[in-house]
Amino acid sequence: MPEFRQNLATKEWIILSAERAKRPEEFARSRPPAMELPATDPNCPFCPGQEGNTPDAILTLPPGADPGNWDVRVVPNKFPALVPAPHGECHVCTNQVGPYLRREGIGYHEVVIDSPLHNHDLPLLTHNQMEYVMQAYCDRYNALIALPTTELVVIFRNHGAKAGTSLIHPHSQIVASSVVPFPVRNRIYEGQRYYDTYAHCVYCDMLEYELREGTRVVMNNDHFAVVAPYASSVPYEVIVMPKRHHATFGAVSADEIHDLAYVLQNVLARLWRLLDDPDYNYVIDTAPEHMEEVPFYHWQIRIIPKLTTQAGFEIGSGIGINVLPPEQAAEQLRAMDGSRITLDEANGR
Amino acid sequence: MPEFRQNLATKEWIILSAERAKRPEEFARSRPPAMELPATDPNCPFCPGQEGNTPDAILTLPPGADPGNWDVRVVPNKFPALVPAPHGECHVCTNQVGPYLRREGIGYHEVVIDSPLHNHDLPLLTHNQMEYVMQAYCDRYNALIALPTTELVVIFRNHGAKAGTSLIHPHSQIVASSVVPFPVRNRIYEGQRYYDTYAHCVYCDMLEYELREGTRVVMNNDHFAVVAPYASSVPYEVIVMPKRHHATFGAVSADEIHDLAYVLQNVLARLWRLLDDPDYNYVIDTAPEHMEEVPFYHWQIRIIPKLTTQAGFEIGSGIGINVLPPEQAAEQLRAMDGSRITLDEANGR
Repeated sequence: MPEFRQNLATKEWIILSAERAKRPEEFARSRPPAMELPATDPNCPFCPGQEGNTPDAILTLPPGADPGNWDVRVVPNKFPALVPAPHGECHVCTNQVGPYLRREGIGYHEVVIDSPLHNHDLPLLTHNQMEYVMQAYCDRYNALIALPTTELVVIFRNHGAKAGTSLIHPHSQIVASSVVPFPVRNRIYEGQRYYDTYAHCVYCDMLEYELREGTRVVMNNDHFAVVAPYASSVPYEVIVMPKRHHATFGAVSADEIHDLAYVLQNVLARLWRLLDDPDYNYVIDTAPEHMEEVPFYHWQIRIIPKLTTQAGFEIGSGIGINVLPPEQAAEQLRAMDGSRITLDEANGR
Repeated sequence: MPEFRQNLATKEWIILSAERAKRPEEFARSRPPAMELPATDPNCPFCPGQEGNTPDAILTLPPGADPGNWDVRVVPNKFPALVPAPHGECHVCTNQVGPYLRREGIGYHEVVIDSPLHNHDLPLLTHNQMEYVMQAYCDRYNALIALPTTELVVIFRNHGAKAGTSLIHPHSQIVASSVVPFPVRNRIYEGQRYYDTYAHCVYCDMLEYELREGTRVVMNNDHFAVVAPYASSVPYEVIVMPKRHHATFGAVSADEIHDLAYVLQNVLARLWRLLDDPDYNYVIDTAPEHMEEVPFYHWQIRIIPKLTTQAGFEIGSGIGINVLPPEQAAEQLRAMDGSRITLDEANGR
């Protein structure tokens, strides 16, 4: 029989309908194997040598690198969803249009070029390179959250066409929003209610339970655990959970960045091998401005493989229908090799 | 400059980023023109003559039609997301798994076969046939909401691969859920807050404003208006709004069904002509069981064309980024011919 499962942190339900379960091969992409990409593509605006085709860099790593010899490069998005206030105002205008509210689309939208190598997605990076990506996330998070119009910093990555990207060169994105959106407000509200009742962080409690119970744990090291959530809304959804309680991503320590680079690459390599380089989105969930110290929110990275299509029932009800028990997803991912993907392996040799 | 717009009924924000706006042709599908489909396909389980390949019909229209000579046929879904209680119990078991809640996946999942003709999607149907589809929705809504385990009835339609369907034969779906999901709870909560403040239904107020203001109105007849919502989350989102206030779809009258069949087909024909038969989902938003009479909820049909891909920012923030102002969408749709699509037109002749 199918079952409803409730996300303890958001109170959202999903339907687990495992009668329709598939084997990993059935989820794997039906597209042809990737063509062998060049290490540098002269038509790619994110490749070294094409720096003039993007706005000037906001950050390059390692620090003090030559302009043409960077490992990670952060630039403003040429097609930003939000833009800085025209004259550097600190105030964002909200006004009424009939019965409706509108607000100026103020904010920041940046692109993190994850590697100089056109054909090296995250699972192929060296550990040092992966650590630079995490460092760039952290540095830009802290710079953007400090700006007067920023209420929330959203760091995310779209991998593959089904995840909404068309550019192959490995890159992530960062949006600094002057509005705190509804799902974040809800997580705050529900986290606070749980804390009021139990005097614990709901995420810390879930993590403790998952590590004790074990069936949904994919990986576990000093600072992070990777878990397939009890109420996964899609097959192979996984969450990278920091063990140290902190509401915001910006508080990540140097030790944690080192571990995070390892864990995130490792779980992405497992997904790659199990599902043949699936399209996915990931996003860093973090508390908004002014909530760095709250005991009821807990930053984390949510990885959402794009293997299925959201249809009318999900749109109408907000209830995801998941055909794969997270216990099976975790078991399959645990059995996978999580070591770095080689270029030969990526090219199917 | 981009702008944030707030959905008055849900308090959700979207970003309107029209600098990236496209012309309708740029949204239109890049797939090849549809192959010419047969009126009947012997391999299609929904075609006449294949009735033995589906479970027995729950409803056929017109009433008393011969088993092999129906206009609309409703059958249980062979691969249901939710299933009836095994022994007809009225109670749905909820239990605790560690800190989590789970509930039996009890409910009903039905398929409405919209037409006996394999190659006649909704915009091609006769008015009578379209009215039978609406009548089937209404009859099944009222039958399902009366069952003891039903808390909410979700009627929806997936058209095209990007909307999550693989079966070409025109069909809709109905799920009777024993759980009231989060977005519905939120609409109730926000509708009630608005009502507490203004003593009006927020949807009635929006409709009145839209009809007065005019720029986002696509169509308007005795019982319904079609509006591109102020805070549209995707290009060409449109809402079919009944003018008579009622919280639940089941209260629709015979006159309204007649008008609804006309209006829904007409707006789908406009979308078809403007966007070259786009993939879309539609869903009937309606209040849950026990709330038939509430003054703060208002049933409606939401049509969501699938022209863009939800990416990491939307997943992380819940904020849709829409590149097309709804005022432009409405203007383009108003200029379109909304008459029934002929088979020659559908076949590109």
